[in-house]
Amino acid sequence: MNAHNHFMAARSSTDEADVVLVGVPFDGTACFRPGARFGPHGIRVWSEVLETYSRPFDADLEDLKLADAGDLPIPPADWQKASPVIQREVRKVLERGSVPILMGGEHLISLAGVQAASRVFPELVVIHMDAHMDLRDDYDGNPLSHATVMRRILEMTGPGSFWQYGVRSGTREEWKLSEEKGTLIEDLGTLHGIVGERPVYLSVDLDVLDPSVMPETGAPEPGGMSFPQLHQAILACRGLKVVAGDVVEYCPFPGGGGPSGAVAAKVVRELIFLAAEGKQVL
Amino acid sequence: MNAHNHFMAARSSTDEADVVLVGVPFDGTACFRPGARFGPHGIRVWSEVLETYSRPFDADLEDLKLADAGDLPIPPADWQKASPVIQREVRKVLERGSVPILMGGEHLISLAGVQAASRVFPELVVIHMDAHMDLRDDYDGNPLSHATVMRRILEMTGPGSFWQYGVRSGTREEWKLSEEKGTLIEDLGTLHGIVGERPVYLSVDLDVLDPSVMPETGAPEPGGMSFPQLHQAILACRGLKVVAGDVVEYCPFPGGGGPSGAVAAKVVRELIFLAAEGKQVL
Amino acid sequence: MNAHNHFMAARSSTDEADVVLVGVPFDGTACFRPGARFGPHGIRVWSEVLETYSRPFDADLEDLKLADAGDLPIPPADWQKASPVIQREVRKVLERGSVPILMGGEHLISLAGVQAASRVFPELVVIHMDAHMDLRDDYDGNPLSHATVMRRILEMTGPGSFWQYGVRSGTREEWKLSEEKGTLIEDLGTLHGIVGERPVYLSVDLDVLDPSVMPETGAPEPGGMSFPQLHQAILACRGLKVVAGDVVEYCPFPGGGGPSGAVAAKVVRELIFLAAEGKQVL
Amino acid sequence: MNAHNHFMAARSSTDEADVVLVGVPFDGTACFRPGARFGPHGIRVWSEVLETYSRPFDADLEDLKLADAGDLPIPPADWQKASPVIQREVRKVLERGSVPILMGGEHLISLAGVQAASRVFPELVVIHMDAHMDLRDDYDGNPLSHATVMRRILEMTGPGSFWQYGVRSGTREEWKLSEEKGTLIEDLGTLHGIVGERPVYLSVDLDVLDPSVMPETGAPEPGGMSFPQLHQAILACRGLKVVAGDVVEYCPFPGGGGPSGAVAAKVVRELIFLAAEGKQVL
Amino acid sequence: MNAHNHFMAARSSTDEADVVLVGVPFDGTACFRPGARFGPHGIRVWSEVLETYSRPFDADLEDLKLADAGDLPIPPADWQKASPVIQREVRKVLERGSVPILMGGEHLISLAGVQAASRVFPELVVIHMDAHMDLRDDYDGNPLSHATVMRRILEMTGPGSFWQYGVRSGTREEWKLSEEKGTLIEDLGTLHGIVGERPVYLSVDLDVLDPSVMPETGAPEPGGMSFPQLHQAILACRGLKVVAGDVVEYCPFPGGGGPSGAVAAKVVRELIFLAAEGKQVL
Amino acid sequence: MNAHNHFMAARSSTDEADVVLVGVPFDGTACFRPGARFGPHGIRVWSEVLETYSRPFDADLEDLKLADAGDLPIPPADWQKASPVIQREVRKVLERGSVPILMGGEHLISLAGVQAASRVFPELVVIHMDAHMDLRDDYDGNPLSHATVMRRILEMTGPGSFWQYGVRSGTREEWKLSEEKGTLIEDLGTLHGIVGERPVYLSVDLDVLDPSVMPETGAPEPGGMSFPQLHQAILACRGLKVVAGDVVEYCPFPGGGGPSGAVAAKVVRELIFLAAEGKQVL
Repeated sequence: MNAHNHFMAARSSTDEADVVLVGVPFDGTACFRPGARFGPHGIRVWSEVLETYSRPFDADLEDLKLADAGDLPIPPADWQKASPVIQREVRKVLERGSVPILMGGEHLISLAGVQAASRVFPELVVIHMDAHMDLRDDYDGNPLSHATVMRRILEMTGPGSFWQYGVRSGTREEWKLSEEKGTLIEDLGTLHGIVGERPVYLSVDLDVLDPSVMPETGAPEPGGMSFPQLHQAILACRGLKVVAGDVVEYCPFPGGGGPSGAVAAKVVRELIFLAAEGKQVL
Repeated sequence: MNAHNHFMAARSSTDEADVVLVGVPFDGTACFRPGARFGPHGIRVWSEVLETYSRPFDADLEDLKLADAGDLPIPPADWQKASPVIQREVRKVLERGSVPILMGGEHLISLAGVQAASRVFPELVVIHMDAHMDLRDDYDGNPLSHATVMRRILEMTGPGSFWQYGVRSGTREEWKLSEEKGTLIEDLGTLHGIVGERPVYLSVDLDVLDPSVMPETGAPEPGGMSFPQLHQAILACRGLKVVAGDVVEYCPFPGGGGPSGAVAAKVVRELIFLAAEGKQVL
Repeated sequence: MNAHNHFMAARSSTDEADVVLVGVPFDGTACFRPGARFGPHGIRVWSEVLETYSRPFDADLEDLKLADAGDLPIPPADWQKASPVIQREVRKVLERGSVPILMGGEHLISLAGVQAASRVFPELVVIHMDAHMDLRDDYDGNPLSHATVMRRILEMTGPGSFWQYGVRSGTREEWKLSEEKGTLIEDLGTLHGIVGERPVYLSVDLDVLDPSVMPETGAPEPGGMSFPQLHQAILACRGLKVVAGDVVEYCPFPGGGGPSGAVAAKVVRELIFLAAEGKQVL
Repeated sequence: MNAHNHFMAARSSTDEADVVLVGVPFDGTACFRPGARFGPHGIRVWSEVLETYSRPFDADLEDLKLADAGDLPIPPADWQKASPVIQREVRKVLERGSVPILMGGEHLISLAGVQAASRVFPELVVIHMDAHMDLRDDYDGNPLSHATVMRRILEMTGPGSFWQYGVRSGTREEWKLSEEKGTLIEDLGTLHGIVGERPVYLSVDLDVLDPSVMPETGAPEPGGMSFPQLHQAILACRGLKVVAGDVVEYCPFPGGGGPSGAVAAKVVRELIFLAAEGKQVL
Repeated sequence: MNAHNHFMAARSSTDEADVVLVGVPFDGTACFRPGARFGPHGIRVWSEVLETYSRPFDADLEDLKLADAGDLPIPPADWQKASPVIQREVRKVLERGSVPILMGGEHLISLAGVQAASRVFPELVVIHMDAHMDLRDDYDGNPLSHATVMRRILEMTGPGSFWQYGVRSGTREEWKLSEEKGTLIEDLGTLHGIVGERPVYLSVDLDVLDPSVMPETGAPEPGGMSFPQLHQAILACRGLKVVAGDVVEYCPFPGGGGPSGAVAAKVVRELIFLAAEGKQVL
Repeated sequence: MNAHNHFMAARSSTDEADVVLVGVPFDGTACFRPGARFGPHGIRVWSEVLETYSRPFDADLEDLKLADAGDLPIPPADWQKASPVIQREVRKVLERGSVPILMGGEHLISLAGVQAASRVFPELVVIHMDAHMDLRDDYDGNPLSHATVMRRILEMTGPGSFWQYGVRSGTREEWKLSEEKGTLIEDLGTLHGIVGERPVYLSVDLDVLDPSVMPETGAPEPGGMSFPQLHQAILACRGLKVVAGDVVEYCPFPGGGGPSGAVAAKVVRELIFLAAEGKQVL
């Protein structure tokens, strides 16, 4: 078989898996550079360059039951049609007792992910790693956009259940709202005391990384993290009960071929291990 | 001033111009490769590599009143919002007595262009140059798409007022419909007898060209025309009264930089001369 | 499921298929630009941009039983190990009564394909479309190379059962040998009289196309065919009994930006129809 | 209007502006990779991906009067003609009481900028951030080159009014001269004591950044700053009276794919705020 | 030795060679896209993908004495310094009795080539293959530019000794001048009668090819020749006494991915054979 | 002469040189992305962007006798033929008393380098900087591969004479073996005590750098060193007696043109100085 049709080592069926990867090829509200619809495919291709074993987790994907559900059959730019399909899939995975990890696609897909997860886990806490606030009330009049998605999520969870990390860009209004609601967290280590045993949704917008590390993204913002810094941030979440998550905004260049795909795939791999630890199957 | 903010030699105001270029940065229904939203900008940049003088027309853009209205302020992937803005602009230009030429953007924008033009010119004839039929009734359930746009237009104009040239790809159903309605024309020279003095809307999907000539497009289909063949097709329309038109589906690569932009810009230039002849201002 | 794991519309099982696509990710003897190992994958991805319906054949892939056997598990640069795997697979497909079409990979894979096919069909005729002679006796001392493959095949079939089309480059010795053996054919239409009902293996090295049409190949040679010319050559083979074939030397650039993949996929599609006609399942 | 014809939020007229951006499309002495002539245009396009609000300055471009004077009409490779045009423009902007920020273009343009500024401000201090010394006496016999520009400027200002930061490459002679003249400064914080209220020209050669951060430059030198380090260096200049400046050596690849343009645009944005603070209009 | 330091098979010393290749890395007056300075290097690298044997000439580079003099030591953008170096080299090669073929570099280098050749051969005839007239009197006030080079050459040779082929772009004034002077020739076969035994300088601007065939050039103009058409044009010059020539305006993209380099190298190869036939050393 | 045929300033003959650069264009066992065969050429081209003077070493290549032996004449994917050629060359250089530095090529070439060096220096110590362990016993059944090369070398040297630095990826088995044998060293400063005056072979796999710094490599692994960190590691080896070394896995993109080549060339330059210090010719 062609090795590119699933993430490395994802050989379980979705029925029995501990963790289920779900491709979400949507980029309908991207305003600078579309193409994140090709992200899931790129992540699968580049996953081959990595090992299945992670040194910091001292764990191997082969130790897990990992499934790749493929790409959801959604129109890449019609949110009204895409959103219910995503929600249905996430809910189905959660109700089977598995952890869904969405491979985007643009950031708006997190809204569907969180909506579904919060129905199954009403106590859900959301952790958001990103270069951008994504807290606008609307974007060009549109309340449902990659630039407003976290405002909508904050409205769902309320303050205290929504934490942002790595943000370096926003409008004055977004920074003000963030301060009022206390959304920014500087030391992820303090999260354990706050969150405790509550279920966590972890959303990683890859543009939290510096554009040198992650050039192939929809809205690169200079001044971000190095890969080791993001890696540390993910490891700082060990001990939290991550029940769902997403990795978004990898937007492969048509002719680029740079290693951004390896970066995205490695973040997905580490999220798998994080979730598996939370589920105590490691 | 930065030379890239308008098409070469487009220095007239839109009020007094013979021909008005309108950028339409929309690519919401692209299914394989989005990015045509950057087409208008790319056309302007690459226009600089060309001369303002066209040998076959023996005419110079400096002889005309040419305006570049810039890009329409539309969301790049929300057709419900974009369509009325395009229609309004096209109608405004037509009512001033000018010829609008839309620089796409994806092919769905032709629908708005034709809708507006047919209100001003009820006798409108549409000529469609393309690799693809674009005659599906719906695409993934969506009746408004780059793949259905000519079906919608055919429904508006009826057979006999809608002509297709250069098509080489379609479903069996599209080919059948095309035959039933008699939409294909092989010798453009015969159009003059058919169309006479009726007003013409000319829509050029750049993928009518072979992908070797026009690699930077949303759905490249091998086996198309050379540039000289398309050039001859445009020249074969001399004598027709072209009142509006569009050049669509130029989708610049982020990192490509190939000369597809020069191709798109040269097609726009020749359409300007064609329209100006039709308006008898040359 | 991820749509990229098979060629478009290849949904049959390999057991029951009329035509079986086989990915052969080998590029071990490429001397200028390696990477053809990624060819099969690129062909599958780009097949999505095409229709399943071919106008010249008036046939649809959905009318056929088409299977995609995926990529063979071979080391990409070790011919001693790769060759028996390829031969075994081709033979297995042939013995089931299906037509194998190999998606390369570099041109040396044709040797394994022809070896297997000639065991099942001792009367095999080979048709070779290529920019290059590939008739050297050895290349840097190596008798098994993309540059010697047709010399080895000619030795197997003997003159009169080996025909070359489209060649424009070779050493003086290769041209001389070709003349002595009478391998070149200028008018493919004359093949029907020569070949009659004998089984045919059709090998298409994509560099037979001009580099403008097919830039992503291992050894681009300026001065080749346009796509319509190659298309006509394939159509000129209608009526021959094509029992096996290959499409080789598509060497995607990292990232796979250009439309060479669409060209390769369209050649594969037309070969499928050619083979299906030969098998009288259309 | 096409959004790409000016830097984001630059809507003031040049007559009334606090800060005036000036595009200087010159790259005549580039020796490794030309193309910086396209830098100003790339900066404008990429500025759109950024916010107008800067968190460290807690300021918004909308709070300022910012103008974009477009590109100067200069031949891209003829310094004798380009130099007086640049000097005239810089002087005109300064005499109106505005701060000019040049968007290069290659580094030689700083010479014209400093010449003009030092006529208006005889006490001018120059701060030079760069990977390279640029202190050669001549380069291939040419005394006016990107590799000699700072030697010429040092001759104008004399030691004590010329400071270099971030340099990591030079000939032995350049390092020796730099030591003799004491041009290198390691802690920018000490500049305030040295410079006081004297007017400052700040020249940022973007290759001071590591090539991973800024690959699209004429002479990439491995081992440079991260973006946060350069950002800190700019912020360390707060309190100085920056009366003019430039951002040079952004050399977009054909097609402009990578995010180097976002880097260049963000440096320009932060220089605008730095200058506005110095002018006390923030 | 590194195989890339000379054109394939160029192993003779310059003293004894029949044909001498000279790299001229100059692009100082390029106005749209510089980079032709890297052309000679790219031609050498890509020459490896070709055979040394040419079928139409039935000749092998190994049959000749071919030298590669390397790149001339000139500043890439200073014509006053570059011009005498080029002239001196061309004259030296000619005076030794060899044929110089310049590998550009931009088109202005032809001026130096023709100046030197016309001193040695006062009866020199110039044949110019190009997309552009290059007949402006000045370009932005500069009389020495890629856009004026053929005007200067026409002034040297006078009408009747200067022939243009393949031109498809120019200003109205250039077309008018061309008509007045009768510079255009449509059928190269008629040249033999006109030129007879006079010495010929053949200048090939690669943009005479369509941009699909030759995308990597400074000013791509859609609508040009296919490679076979240019090949025929060169072969049509067999029998003329070509004493010098150049191949210009190959402008490799950073990285040099596309096969434009193979195109340029093949044109150089065929010019070598053309010159060798004229010298009767084949 | 064409400047690209040798590393900058490498003008000595191989007979008299202190340090001899040897190009090894081999990539036969690359499994993800081949192309390292073009590495030596890319390093030579990019070396031109650097100075010959290194500040940390306070030394200039012009102070040394440096030779560039060009590329070895080896088939790029046949290890049985390539290995003895590499070994012979390394041994020849060593026996002349020079230091060979191999420019790869993929990592398997280190095996031939170490085999040759350990014959001349039986007490050889190997230092290995890499992202990957390369300690597998076999890879797809092949014991000689880029993924097994350090296992083979460890078997030759035994523990205590083989040190790894910068590794961040491997299988569980490789990490276990590494621990058992104690191959990892965290503080290179401690090496001096361990190694003393024994001769050292230093192998630098460029993927030890983060993919942001070195995207053009065969198997990019996110999370690596910055350039300054690698630079420090090399400087930490000052005082060791480096008798041979290699720089491998630079795999230039066909169309990328990024500055990875400058990175590779700068590492080679610093290794030259390191070796020259060890030889006490600085």
